[in-house]
Order: sequence, then structure tokens, then C-alpha cells
Amino acid sequence: MRNEARFDLPRRMLLGPGPSDVHPRVLGAMSQPTIGHLDPAFVSLMEEIKDLLRYAFRTTNAFTIPISGPGSAGMEACFVNLLEHGDTAIVCVNGVFGTRMRENVERCGACAVVVEDAWGSPIDPDKVAAALKANPGTKVLAFVHAETSTGVRSDAAALCALAKQHGALTIVDTVTGLGGISVDVDAWGADAVYSGSQKCLSVPPGLSPLTFGPRAVAAVKARKTKVQSWFLDLSLLMGYWAGEGGRSYHHTAPINALYGLHEGLLMLREEGLEHAWARHARMSAAFVAGVEAMGLAMQVDADVRLPQLNVVKAPSGVDEAAIRRDMLGLADVEIGGALGAWAGKAWRIGLMGQSATPRHVLGCLGALEGALAAAGVKIPAGAGVVAARRVLDGA
Amino acid sequence: MRNEARFDLPRRMLLGPGPSDVHPRVLGAMSQPTIGHLDPAFVSLMEEIKDLLRYAFRTTNAFTIPISGPGSAGMEACFVNLLEHGDTAIVCVNGVFGTRMRENVERCGACAVVVEDAWGSPIDPDKVAAALKANPGTKVLAFVHAETSTGVRSDAAALCALAKQHGALTIVDTVTGLGGISVDVDAWGADAVYSGSQKCLSVPPGLSPLTFGPRAVAAVKARKTKVQSWFLDLSLLMGYWAGEGGRSYHHTAPINALYGLHEGLLMLREEGLEHAWARHARMSAAFVAGVEAMGLAMQVDADVRLPQLNVVKAPSGVDEAAIRRDMLGLADVEIGGALGAWAGKAWRIGLMGQSATPRHVLGCLGALEGALAAAGVKIPAGAGVVAARRVLDGA
Repeated sequence: MRNEARFDLPRRMLLGPGPSDVHPRVLGAMSQPTIGHLDPAFVSLMEEIKDLLRYAFRTTNAFTIPISGPGSAGMEACFVNLLEHGDTAIVCVNGVFGTRMRENVERCGACAVVVEDAWGSPIDPDKVAAALKANPGTKVLAFVHAETSTGVRSDAAALCALAKQHGALTIVDTVTGLGGISVDVDAWGADAVYSGSQKCLSVPPGLSPLTFGPRAVAAVKARKTKVQSWFLDLSLLMGYWAGEGGRSYHHTAPINALYGLHEGLLMLREEGLEHAWARHARMSAAFVAGVEAMGLAMQVDADVRLPQLNVVKAPSGVDEAAIRRDMLGLADVEIGGALGAWAGKAWRIGLMGQSATPRHVLGCLGALEGALAAAGVKIPAGAGVVAARRVLDGA
Repeated sequence: MRNEARFDLPRRMLLGPGPSDVHPRVLGAMSQPTIGHLDPAFVSLMEEIKDLLRYAFRTTNAFTIPISGPGSAGMEACFVNLLEHGDTAIVCVNGVFGTRMRENVERCGACAVVVEDAWGSPIDPDKVAAALKANPGTKVLAFVHAETSTGVRSDAAALCALAKQHGALTIVDTVTGLGGISVDVDAWGADAVYSGSQKCLSVPPGLSPLTFGPRAVAAVKARKTKVQSWFLDLSLLMGYWAGEGGRSYHHTAPINALYGLHEGLLMLREEGLEHAWARHARMSAAFVAGVEAMGLAMQVDADVRLPQLNVVKAPSGVDEAAIRRDMLGLADVEIGGALGAWAGKAWRIGLMGQSATPRHVLGCLGALEGALAAAGVKIPAGAGVVAARRVLDGA
């Protein structure tokens, strides 16, 4: 045991599926002295965070807050508040997080109707339409907008429109989407949407931005039974986040983590949402050009690929985990392994938030080339970096 | 809306019921660059945190971790994992947090047998013994060791012994206890114990240290039904915190918050638990001497009073909320209002962790004297500070 002394932390370049690199401004905000959660200054900060989240989500929803827990707590908040025993939910599964949604539905004592699509494919709206038709009275349609496990984007607008046609509420997971690609809660007509702090917002993990629209709030208020989670009961959380005057105690908010979220959201607004989306798209284009110039292939089709999560096929015969260990050990570059059907055969490379910069694209390509070459894979020297630079230089 | 610019935070002296003042070492640790939650360096940090928590809880329990949420998430983790539909739990209620425990039991679909004691009194072991006798087959006895709402300590050792005699598991809330007064999980024979980061550990809010003993772990493994919360399912969390080799993905841990917890626990071990307890006792003794020299009275009897949470009666006719506003506005000293039966009639003054120092005792007494004098209350000038100094000077 070496905890006699302070912990000696390495400095990494974070290019996995999250967390992403955190800007010094956010780290600095988090290290400001703690104040009380009932302090008038903290109440003002809460109000600003709600405003900034509404900007990020593109919504006017009054109930837009960060849940005091990671993305999986945000997910659970949606399900436990909208579902009651015996309700039916259609759950789209095309990766790990769809499967987790299904778990949530079942643990609420509700019935999960699963619409499955292949690993690496987007959700097929036709199948969803058929499921909605076949299951009248469905209360919730739940799907993942940006699947972190596969790097695939699904058509949130189309899926929300289908749900609305059939009178179902939508629960949308955009943990990896928010700040990286277009998320447009009001235009979609989405009812309950959650995200995570540690992806394209580049705030440390531990908070889950969440927004509930009027139909979702009405459904919470119309419940016949109490929400099974006290901690995630939105009728209580609404009171806690109600603003000066109407606030009622629920839990103690994670003060310093919220300082960080505030700063990260402020940086997003300073840049502008559309500019942030364009930056993610440009960094991914440069990265993909580099990967392909190295003779490697992307796993997901370009039209449904998330720019912030790039899945690269490992060359056959290469021990992909050894490449990751080499990159981390020598170059301090973290990339992610693949899951499910792709485990051992691909890498997940995140270019999210503060990790979506030319420095990260070029650093990753260089480290990957070095590790592959050291493992005996024949790679045209420097080709990846040159091709990426061409995109970055604005060709 | 003023979030065009960075947020201008005040500097406070935190003497409410939590959060307490956070040491610059902890704030500095939290501002270290984020690394990945699967990074080998982070896995080492997780192992060290488990060791340090075992030291703080005085336990050898293998399953000793911080829950990635505030104390109310730690509370819920205990109930949802140990209770199933139809189980019976005896819940001791002598303040706000006992009432919250009861809510948790009922939301698990279990039957809550309530043993009530008066606001400001400790839990009466005789009543608990009678309830255990009257309800054979009770699965859980739940109680609050250190009631944050009243400043009262109950006899955890006696209550755990009673539960063991009757074959019931214990769930013990020591959110405000850990690090401030004797918490002795193994000696008590307590089965499931949770705490909070923001009280006597002086780490920002957002984490809930938790320990499960062998009987509690066996109960989780023997469950017939799935835990209703996916996020708080301990069988999944055990996999996530299993250490190098056996780790399985669950959620993304709040990396930077855990840096802070590690540093705060390290500081506690450097000081030594017994020294920390003695410091809390001495600061409270000095504070109480000061309060009484000012002609004010303590609300809770000395033999069951928590040194880290001092409830002071407001002089009759004084607007206690105005006094708090004055202290915060002019002296940047935060104290807490009282709840329940004492609302509007008393203050809750925390001397927790890094807020249990002579500077805080004297600063609080001075600010309180000033605010009372400004409100027209006759207070012998300087008497509080002089009396407190006498204790601090080692009389």
C-alpha cells in the first residue's frame, strides 16, 4: 500500500469513449472553495446552469437540470419517473446502452418490447413504426441517439415523430451526442433526454444533464404510484431546483462538480453550438483521412458515423489490446477497446469536446502508427499525419 | 442572465450542517487532470480509496467503496439491495433522516415498522428491543447514528447488538458521524453503513462512502429478485470495484471527485482517527463554553450531543433567519437553520472536519455576537470568545 503519500497521477491524452480531456478553466473552476448548497450565490449558479443546459439541449423546457450522478443515473431517472408497474415501453437495442435501457424498463416492473438492430447499424424507423402499431397504448419509446458502444448515430427526429404519432413519450439517450453533433430537443419534440458531463462537454464524469418536456412533466404528475427511487424522484428534484423562494431541500448538490459543469457549458456557449459541431466534424474528417491513408479501415458507414466516436478496424493478426497498452505506456495516449461483436477487433477512438483538436488528431495518429510499426505492421511512414494535415490545413 | 462571464464565487466559512470547509490540498487534488476510469493508474487509486475507507470505517469489509452520488444515494443503495418486496424493516425515526429511511423502505415495496423517538432524543434501545420481539422475521433494523437534523448521537453498538440477537441486518446512517466521532463498524457488528463526503471528511459533496459486511453481502447474493435500481445494484458495483483483473464495466466513476476523496481520507489518516475525534470534541467544548458565556443555551443534552453539530437555541423574540443572513452577508459565516419542531427557534452550527478549528470556533462566536448585538440582543461583549479561548488554551 503506497497511500502514505499523495497520489502521483499520470498526464494522459484522453481519446477513449470518455472521459475526454478537461480544459484547465474547468479544472480551475472545480478547485474554487466550496460554498453551501443553500447559499444565495449557489442558488444563482444553479439558475445559470439551467439556462446554459437549455442552450446546449436547444430547449425551452423549464425542467432542465444536471442529475447528481453519472449518465446511468440520468438514464434511470427517466425510466423510474415515466414508467409504472405494468406499463409498456418499446426499447430500441443496437448496442450496449440500448440493452441497459431494457434492464431499466424491466426493473421498473414494466414490459419491454425490444426492437433490435444489428451491432453497428442505426435504429430502423420502419421497425419502430411496426412495433408502435403492434403495441397500442405503449407509454414510452426509448432509444439511444449516439451509441457510445458502436459509434453510430440514429435519427432522433424521425423516431420522436413516430412516437408522437402513436401517443408515446420518448426517452432519448444522448450521453455522447450533446455538444458534439446536433441535439435539438424542442425541434425533435423529444420528451425526456439525458446526457453525460464527460463526453463532448469535457467536464469530469459524475453529472448527467437531463431535460423533461411538458408532456413528460405531466406524466410524472399524473403517476398513480410513488417513484421507486427517492434519490431520483423528479417531483422532489423539481422542488430542489425550483430557484430562489420556492426551493425545498432534497439532497446536497455536488457543489464543486457543478462549478466545473458551469464552466464547461460556458465554454460551449462562448464557442457556439454550431461551431462546436463543425469542429467535431472537421476533426473526425481529418482523423479518418489519416486512418485510411495508413491503410486502415473505419468500421461504421460514413452516413451514420459519429464524428466524436470513431471505430477503427484493427489489422488482422494484431493484438489490439497490446497496441492500446503500448500507446498508453509510451505516448500517454488513451484509446478505447471495442465491445460486443467487435471486441478484440477494433478500437473506439473518441474526439470529444476538448479532445477534438488538431493536436489530438495528429497525436493519436502518430502514436497509433508508432505502436503498429513496433508490432511489425507495415504502415507507410508518416502517411496518416500527412493526410490528416491536408484536411486540417483546409484543403 | 449574467453567465456571459465566469462566476464570481464568495469565500465563506462553512459552519452549517454540511458541506464543511474543504482544505486546499483536497481542492488541489480535484483540479488534477482527468484520466480514464479504466486507466491502470486510476485502478490503483480505487484500491487505495477502498483501503483508506476501511481505515475510516474501522472495518476489514472487502466491499467498502464510495457510491458515485450523494449520501441519499448511499442510503438508497443500502435499502434497495437488502430489501425485497414484502420484507419487513424496523425503522427508527428521531429526525429527518429516519423519516427518509422510512420512505426508502416503502418505495422498495417492503413493510416499515416505525419506532419513534422525540425530536432531539436518541433512539431508545428498549423500544427497539420490543419492536424486534413483536416482529419476528424482521429482515432489517435501520437507524441513524448521528442525526444531522437534530445533532443527536444514538448508541450504534447497542442497536447493532439487538439486531444481531434477533437475526436482523442493520443499516446504519453515519453521514455526519464518520471522521467526527467514533465509528467502529466491525466492533459494532454493523452490516451496511453509509456516510457522506461533505461532513467530517471535508470533501465536497457528491460521494457516499459505503461498507457492506459479510452478512449483508450474503443477503445481496441470496436475493430472489433483481435490485430495482440498476445504478445502485451492488452485485454490479462489486464487479466494477473488484480491482485489477476482475473489473467489469458498470458506470463511469466521478474521477476528479475521487481524487478529492482520496486526498481527504489521506489527511484523516495522517492526523489519525482518534486525534480527529478528540479535535472535534475539543472544538465543540470550546464553542459550547462560548455560547453559554454569551447567555445562550444548547438544545441537546450534553451526553447525546454530537460535537460536530451544535444546536443552539435562538433567544426568544429574535428572528433567527435574519441573524443567519447578517452573519453570511457581513462576515461570510454560514450557519444552518433548524428543522422540524425547532424550525425558527434554533441554529445548527457544524464544526466538522476542516471546520473544526479554533479559527472557526472563534470566528463563529464573534460573528454571532456581532449579529445578535446589531439586532438589539444584550450580550456581554467578548464573553463568548474569552470563554472559548479558555478551553482552547488548555484550561
